[in-house]
Amino acid sequence: MIESKSTIRVRYAETDMMGVVYHGSYLPWLEVARTDMFRNAGLSYFELEQKGYQLPVLSLDVKYHRPAVYDDEIEIAVILKERPLLRIHLEYELRRGDELIVTASTQHAFIDKAGNPSRPPAEFTDLMSQHFVP
Amino acid sequence: MIESKSTIRVRYAETDMMGVVYHGSYLPWLEVARTDMFRNAGLSYFELEQKGYQLPVLSLDVKYHRPAVYDDEIEIAVILKERPLLRIHLEYELRRGDELIVTASTQHAFIDKAGNPSRPPAEFTDLMSQHFVP
Amino acid sequence: MIESKSTIRVRYAETDMMGVVYHGSYLPWLEVARTDMFRNAGLSYFELEQKGYQLPVLSLDVKYHRPAVYDDEIEIAVILKERPLLRIHLEYELRRGDELIVTASTQHAFIDKAGNPSRPPAEFTDLMSQHFVP
Amino acid sequence: MIESKSTIRVRYAETDMMGVVYHGSYLPWLEVARTDMFRNAGLSYFELEQKGYQLPVLSLDVKYHRPAVYDDEIEIAVILKERPLLRIHLEYELRRGDELIVTASTQHAFIDKAGNPSRPPAEFTDLMSQHFVP
Repeated sequence: MIESKSTIRVRYAETDMMGVVYHGSYLPWLEVARTDMFRNAGLSYFELEQKGYQLPVLSLDVKYHRPAVYDDEIEIAVILKERPLLRIHLEYELRRGDELIVTASTQHAFIDKAGNPSRPPAEFTDLMSQHFVP
Repeated sequence: MIESKSTIRVRYAETDMMGVVYHGSYLPWLEVARTDMFRNAGLSYFELEQKGYQLPVLSLDVKYHRPAVYDDEIEIAVILKERPLLRIHLEYELRRGDELIVTASTQHAFIDKAGNPSRPPAEFTDLMSQHFVP
Repeated sequence: MIESKSTIRVRYAETDMMGVVYHGSYLPWLEVARTDMFRNAGLSYFELEQKGYQLPVLSLDVKYHRPAVYDDEIEIAVILKERPLLRIHLEYELRRGDELIVTASTQHAFIDKAGNPSRPPAEFTDLMSQHFVP
Repeated sequence: MIESKSTIRVRYAETDMMGVVYHGSYLPWLEVARTDMFRNAGLSYFELEQKGYQLPVLSLDVKYHRPAVYDDEIEIAVILKERPLLRIHLEYELRRGDELIVTASTQHAFIDKAGNPSRPPAEFTDLMSQHFVP
């Protein structure tokens, strides 16, 4: 299992006229949490991309429990529960203090520069081997 | 059943460094399609908000089948299949010509200005009665 | 002189908690107007990029006269007044009906794929010759 | 004079297909720097809004010197040089390490909930008196 926590503060730009955070503004935060998770685990997602690998979002689902508002500090926990083969499944919990704000999950798979499905790069497979004992 | 189709053209701002549309950029398009669906059915979502009703997104899921790219014309079909009681369930299909790009669904419920769950406004209930014969 | 007009309808995602359009949301509309201006003049900006040319924004300024709100139809007029040499200077006026909402200008210059300053591509120079008599 | 520094890390969502940060993505960062400046000086912009004051952007200009890229750490320095009367003029410098990336300025004025020009709230005037000796 790989777990990581990130904190963001809500930007004014991320709100909408409902007075709370726009529902689409949470997606970049999930991405911040993913990038941090990889970085904390010793892997730079940016370097993976420079080597020709990309890890697009194949699908996602989001449940909005309570609205976040401008200037809130939100903690995003991301968990990789199962060793990924071709599909990478990530789960997220967003909290303001003790309050659960949003839960989400995303599925990903590696592709190469041409956009074709690709085996994960060695750095990624090695990292998985460190965290998931057979 | 209520169906509606909208067309958008992909903006440069909606792409990311993967060279295709950013996965979060599709959410505002779903919203464009929802607003158009209500407008085509004779209901202004903006007026509903001005009367004190809001229709936030409670949950959503998105499946990314093929990437859209800058300058593409994308058709968004939105369908309300079942007469909503408190929950409104919408389904979306996004196409570039014949190609299916993205499928999605969103769930909504009316709230009042204080953010509490609310019965749908009369305009909405009337509209549903026109489209869903008992 | 090259002039072009585009119309957009304000999306919910483009508002903020002030209840009006977020000041940063106007920038993608300027871009829509630029793309349309080139398209109307027979030039596809997308094709220019695929041939290895890019036209980044070097600087911009925006004056906000009145706020646009959700669901407004906004007309964006873009004008290229002077034949560009290396710098391209564009001016914009955004209107809701007769009301002036925003005025803006942007400056651009061509760069190549490596990010170095580049002479404009032949398609662009030819287009300028058609519109600006010596 | 009031000065403040903030640091952000570039999000994937903030890039575009040019491979660098989208020119509009810098505007929310300026806002982060403004909010931090007020907070560091003991003033919560969020509380000012809750008391009925808003501080919209009246105009802005941005000069793009070098592109920022995904995962960069960018330091944003914001300076209020002159004691504001009705207009508040802020200047910004964005740096990646020693490299100057972007310079910008924004002008603001207080409005009330009805959108009419307003004198600054007492908290703001007091803060100015502390930092600008007559």
